[in-house]
Amino acid sequence: MFPPDETAVLFANDAFYAAFGLRDFAAMEALWAHTSPVSCIHPGGPLMLERSIVMGSWRAILDSGQTASVTHLDATPMLIGDIAWVTCLERIGDNILAATNIFAREDNVWKMTHHQAGPTDAV
Amino acid sequence: MFPPDETAVLFANDAFYAAFGLRDFAAMEALWAHTSPVSCIHPGGPLMLERSIVMGSWRAILDSGQTASVTHLDATPMLIGDIAWVTCLERIGDNILAATNIFAREDNVWKMTHHQAGPTDAV
Repeated sequence: MFPPDETAVLFANDAFYAAFGLRDFAAMEALWAHTSPVSCIHPGGPLMLERSIVMGSWRAILDSGQTASVTHLDATPMLIGDIAWVTCLERIGDNILAATNIFAREDNVWKMTHHQAGPTDAV
Repeated sequence: MFPPDETAVLFANDAFYAAFGLRDFAAMEALWAHTSPVSCIHPGGPLMLERSIVMGSWRAILDSGQTASVTHLDATPMLIGDIAWVTCLERIGDNILAATNIFAREDNVWKMTHHQAGPTDAV
């Protein structure tokens, strides 16, 4: 059992993977931070820093139809004040990725501010 | 020009790559957070959560002799209160990696709390 704040961060992390797996762009757009800085590094991809660029990348990924099967495991939240990060493994089809997800508390709701995923052969 | 806090975060990020390139384990050990949670994901590697495990991984990497040439570029700091993250590219020999580095301010010094690097073909 995690304390309430950590549990809320894990819910936010779950919501990210639910939007990812369901290809729900509206949910994906809503769960990314609006007032905090935003960044993202997709596997093999460039550094993305602008919210519009990050969201454009997610629209392209979700529209690609290649993400129907997304699950995650081993999620661990680390929290300092109003910022948290989660490490977890992602299973996308036959690929296993390791991920860092950073969240900021905006108006008492945890919003994603950063995502990096990269291939791992550690499973 | 970045504001003072962002500049300090970039110095901490520089110090990380200096320790990495110089294979200076004492410096590497000192620049990782002591009171905040710590985690690390090396390229292709597992999720590491315990400080002792993370530092053991760095000792192995620095002792391997495979990191003599490490440079980084395109470092951008994002800061919220006493937590910051930096995205940057790493050049290690002929390999280019994309990285997320998270820092926490401990006793007014920015200490590393998380590092993930993964291969990128975006350069």
